[in-house]
Amino acid sequence: MKRVAVLGASGYTGREFLRLLRHHPALELTHFMGSRAPGTSAPAPHVPGERAPAPLELARLEGLDGVFLCTPHAASAELALQCLALGLKVVDLSADFRLKDARTYERVYEHRHPAPQLLAEAVYGLTEHARESVASARLVANPGCYPTSVLLALKPLLAAGLVEAGTPIAANCASGLSGAGKQPNERTHFGNVHDNYLAYGAGTHRHAPEIEQEAGRTGIAFVPHLLPVFRGILATLYVQPRAGADVATLRACLAEAYRGERFVRVRESGLPELHAVQHTNECHIGLAPVGPFVVLVSAIDNLVKGASGQALQNMNLMLGLEEGAGLA
Amino acid sequence: MKRVAVLGASGYTGREFLRLLRHHPALELTHFMGSRAPGTSAPAPHVPGERAPAPLELARLEGLDGVFLCTPHAASAELALQCLALGLKVVDLSADFRLKDARTYERVYEHRHPAPQLLAEAVYGLTEHARESVASARLVANPGCYPTSVLLALKPLLAAGLVEAGTPIAANCASGLSGAGKQPNERTHFGNVHDNYLAYGAGTHRHAPEIEQEAGRTGIAFVPHLLPVFRGILATLYVQPRAGADVATLRACLAEAYRGERFVRVRESGLPELHAVQHTNECHIGLAPVGPFVVLVSAIDNLVKGASGQALQNMNLMLGLEEGAGLA
Amino acid sequence: MKRVAVLGASGYTGREFLRLLRHHPALELTHFMGSRAPGTSAPAPHVPGERAPAPLELARLEGLDGVFLCTPHAASAELALQCLALGLKVVDLSADFRLKDARTYERVYEHRHPAPQLLAEAVYGLTEHARESVASARLVANPGCYPTSVLLALKPLLAAGLVEAGTPIAANCASGLSGAGKQPNERTHFGNVHDNYLAYGAGTHRHAPEIEQEAGRTGIAFVPHLLPVFRGILATLYVQPRAGADVATLRACLAEAYRGERFVRVRESGLPELHAVQHTNECHIGLAPVGPFVVLVSAIDNLVKGASGQALQNMNLMLGLEEGAGLA
Amino acid sequence: MKRVAVLGASGYTGREFLRLLRHHPALELTHFMGSRAPGTSAPAPHVPGERAPAPLELARLEGLDGVFLCTPHAASAELALQCLALGLKVVDLSADFRLKDARTYERVYEHRHPAPQLLAEAVYGLTEHARESVASARLVANPGCYPTSVLLALKPLLAAGLVEAGTPIAANCASGLSGAGKQPNERTHFGNVHDNYLAYGAGTHRHAPEIEQEAGRTGIAFVPHLLPVFRGILATLYVQPRAGADVATLRACLAEAYRGERFVRVRESGLPELHAVQHTNECHIGLAPVGPFVVLVSAIDNLVKGASGQALQNMNLMLGLEEGAGLA
Repeated sequence: MKRVAVLGASGYTGREFLRLLRHHPALELTHFMGSRAPGTSAPAPHVPGERAPAPLELARLEGLDGVFLCTPHAASAELALQCLALGLKVVDLSADFRLKDARTYERVYEHRHPAPQLLAEAVYGLTEHARESVASARLVANPGCYPTSVLLALKPLLAAGLVEAGTPIAANCASGLSGAGKQPNERTHFGNVHDNYLAYGAGTHRHAPEIEQEAGRTGIAFVPHLLPVFRGILATLYVQPRAGADVATLRACLAEAYRGERFVRVRESGLPELHAVQHTNECHIGLAPVGPFVVLVSAIDNLVKGASGQALQNMNLMLGLEEGAGLA
Repeated sequence: MKRVAVLGASGYTGREFLRLLRHHPALELTHFMGSRAPGTSAPAPHVPGERAPAPLELARLEGLDGVFLCTPHAASAELALQCLALGLKVVDLSADFRLKDARTYERVYEHRHPAPQLLAEAVYGLTEHARESVASARLVANPGCYPTSVLLALKPLLAAGLVEAGTPIAANCASGLSGAGKQPNERTHFGNVHDNYLAYGAGTHRHAPEIEQEAGRTGIAFVPHLLPVFRGILATLYVQPRAGADVATLRACLAEAYRGERFVRVRESGLPELHAVQHTNECHIGLAPVGPFVVLVSAIDNLVKGASGQALQNMNLMLGLEEGAGLA
Repeated sequence: MKRVAVLGASGYTGREFLRLLRHHPALELTHFMGSRAPGTSAPAPHVPGERAPAPLELARLEGLDGVFLCTPHAASAELALQCLALGLKVVDLSADFRLKDARTYERVYEHRHPAPQLLAEAVYGLTEHARESVASARLVANPGCYPTSVLLALKPLLAAGLVEAGTPIAANCASGLSGAGKQPNERTHFGNVHDNYLAYGAGTHRHAPEIEQEAGRTGIAFVPHLLPVFRGILATLYVQPRAGADVATLRACLAEAYRGERFVRVRESGLPELHAVQHTNECHIGLAPVGPFVVLVSAIDNLVKGASGQALQNMNLMLGLEEGAGLA
Repeated sequence: MKRVAVLGASGYTGREFLRLLRHHPALELTHFMGSRAPGTSAPAPHVPGERAPAPLELARLEGLDGVFLCTPHAASAELALQCLALGLKVVDLSADFRLKDARTYERVYEHRHPAPQLLAEAVYGLTEHARESVASARLVANPGCYPTSVLLALKPLLAAGLVEAGTPIAANCASGLSGAGKQPNERTHFGNVHDNYLAYGAGTHRHAPEIEQEAGRTGIAFVPHLLPVFRGILATLYVQPRAGADVATLRACLAEAYRGERFVRVRESGLPELHAVQHTNECHIGLAPVGPFVVLVSAIDNLVKGASGQALQNMNLMLGLEEGAGLA
């Protein structure tokens, strides 16, 4: 058994590892650490078993094989430095190593990058598109939840030149509330979420530069929305196909790109829904022609393929384990 | 037009008056004051229109006819003293004047009563059972939401001696989340309410002594539960009828007690549900024989008949207006 | 008092009139008729009071002033003919008179139009854009819920030429479940809606030709989504402004178009959410620059401004009453 | 690997086996059969993977080790006869073998029992209370969901004589909608469940005689309620302790009864909530003194410990496997 730790255990992504690592045949979660005060009384939804986070003590991680950082940005980069120094493989679920340019990071996250020297080394871990780099990486930047849902649908089409050059892309995304985190505030109050729906962060959300960096293209308009649902992201993408290409061309391109993939399913017809992917590490993609656009709908569970599940998929690769272990 | 103010405008019960007083033919809401910082971005569910609370300035209330206190306990009693001194009729939606005994209040609310001299004068405003006293009162203690749902079903039966003496009564109550207030905390976080259900405050809830005081009887076991719903309380009451009485006897007693009442409906068959009473000032009561018990189910909207609606019903009476004005 | 009837009383839009006409100062709902079997046990959410539909008997409508048709398409057109013959003003909430071309109707709704001779006369009742025609109409085609949300945001911009010619528009819309109607089926089963979210009817929804007809333009890609919410539509529209125009230009255009309007509010900043418009006849519109697009978010209550509320607004005009009567 | 079949695959309990048997180390689900038409488009909530039910062909079950009957009552008993004849161990999730008396069954389920000769042999599979009988049984009647939640809390107390003789017990239970099944009807329509709560079947629910039979006692008043939640049952039980016994006595009794049990947890303090048990085979029990009662709150997932999970626990025992296999 390889041994791993979770730092930042008290949040949703930290706790999700309790669920994912229960059945893992080759990984043991030996340390589950968080800095936040314990004493919470509310059980995490859908996380069987409870395990109180221990205080954060990095010295105790020596000799482990890997660590998942579920800590906030800025804190994560500092911890990554220390964990790498201890010889651990690091998957960072924060945004600290996603943007390749330290100045962009500084503008978007509004503080200096704590470890810019690691940016070149860090691998952006959209697993299906970075399998080999991830396998040999010391440090993986786990993709944001929204970027995962958008990029899995777009990247093969862009790589194949199937989107008309110069045309803008609308990326209309909707997420369950767990994406907003466990912190109680006006925005996460039941009274303001239940039976409601809204757009937020239009034009300002921090995942927008991440999406454009990894798409290798600008002109992608990302508008997130908040759903009265706990888990899941559904991205509805409006793209204009290159002359001569239609929905069948695009579907064939995606089907080919993900042939044999265990966690990405391209539907032959129909569009996916959240129920089909919640609690799984899967991304389902459907397509439909709608006027001048081909519309792509991509669905994931934001806490699994959009966070802890993809992080585990990456860690499995980094530690030489079967990529899907613990994720079926 | 008579003129009224709402103090404590930023909470759910305060804002509910915006909804209720829109159509009132004889009351104008001239002052809507709250101490909490404005700048909230989330609109109140189901409250058409928005109106930012003004700062609390009692001097500006001079010359008004009445005031609704939606302020927290302890603060309410202080404000009541000042408003009465200004000559206003006061309906207090806090718990400050519900318990008749200052020592009980002190034990339950864990601070000294700020105005014990008013306790004898204050009228417990369960309107259908205190109509005349309310009409002549200067100060009405508006009943708690749970007590309203329980007492409307129980009081006529107890008064008629239809509940077997000495037998305990189980009062299993479930409330929508708005009963927990607008304050963001772990308990009101969407992630902990949505798709969940739980009992809380069993044996310790502050509404228990209020229920027993007004029922004039001990042995009522009140267990509140939290529903993933915004509005509404459903109380399921298990009573043992006196020898010779059965469900028909009890139903007849309630039907007679509420004959001609506009806001209490005793069903001839079937049990009520939240959908039938949400957004209304109505209480629906149904009965069924279940083994050794007659079970009573009583449903109200906790923000209307359980709070602001009943408060308006009381204020209408205190100001000599039609009791149901604004409430249909 | 003028007198009106509702036909098709058992559905959500029919029952919504019970709520809207309670406080109307000048309209009385004298006949509430439906063909569906009574005996339903579930109260309509948010409809205070209950009123069992009477059987459909057109002869009894003689002498009334107006009628709201909440009946299914095809049935509505037949009833419209008969009601007009009786001298009633007719607001039809079905799709029968929305499409101006009988062949388009035939293709979209898959049956012959039952009264093509009325198509030329029928006024498309998007009230703010057809006030005078509505006021003098005998027959109004009440707009679809999705088209209302989309067209209120787009029409002024298109009329002013502020959308770049030839560029496609993405209209990403999400609706509460009441838009799917009261009929129990797999799609409306709680287990398939709760905690879920999905796109449907992409490229095939019947509201798409209606939107393009009234926008006077093709290239509008309409993709509806289903929310686990009861009431409300949020439309997120991606438009490319004409060279020289930006978000401020578009906002100013909309603000000017709706200056003085009672039911359309153009926000100076921020984006609307469902909670702000549920249970009201209002449409709230917000704008934000997002990459190459200006994004417009438009929110309505699908049962009010998207159906019965706008129908009442139209009927008020047709009967010479105050346009907003009963709707505040 | 032992091999099992699920008959009645299209319902919620049938599909739950897809989730439970994914990780089972010693059981393979070789046949997944249902009679209902396939072609459903809605994915089962929380069931990763999809598997279309095959038509029901009993001959194909020959040579298997066991079968789970998720079929409706009456149909189940017929199938049980045939499966036993094929030599399979049978766990029947319907009500057909729960009631020991054929006449009671006939009265409650309103048809003749199809296989009364099996009633004596069938073991009521409340696993923790019937472990040895289950292990040697050919046919297990899997307990109803409500009875499981109630009996796990009550049985040890009744056996120890800790409930005052002759006193009635109120069993106030609330269930998620999945307990009502997949069939679309007015009661399962999202519009009638969402944001609602109601009591139903008071005094008439078919689980009432099952509870009293297995409790070995009458006077248990069972009132089920419907929650706007997908999974879970919370039972709130009001019992009067024997003279000299209090909440500590009762808690100690339960703790002792379930010492070492893997799936039943008696809380030392606090009350359980649905979130703690959803998606698990666990039952959590909490106690609190409330006036003259000790209140017990028992929480399970109705589809797991209340149905398919307990069925698997039983099948594991019947086939000589580790009792908790597949259930952790």
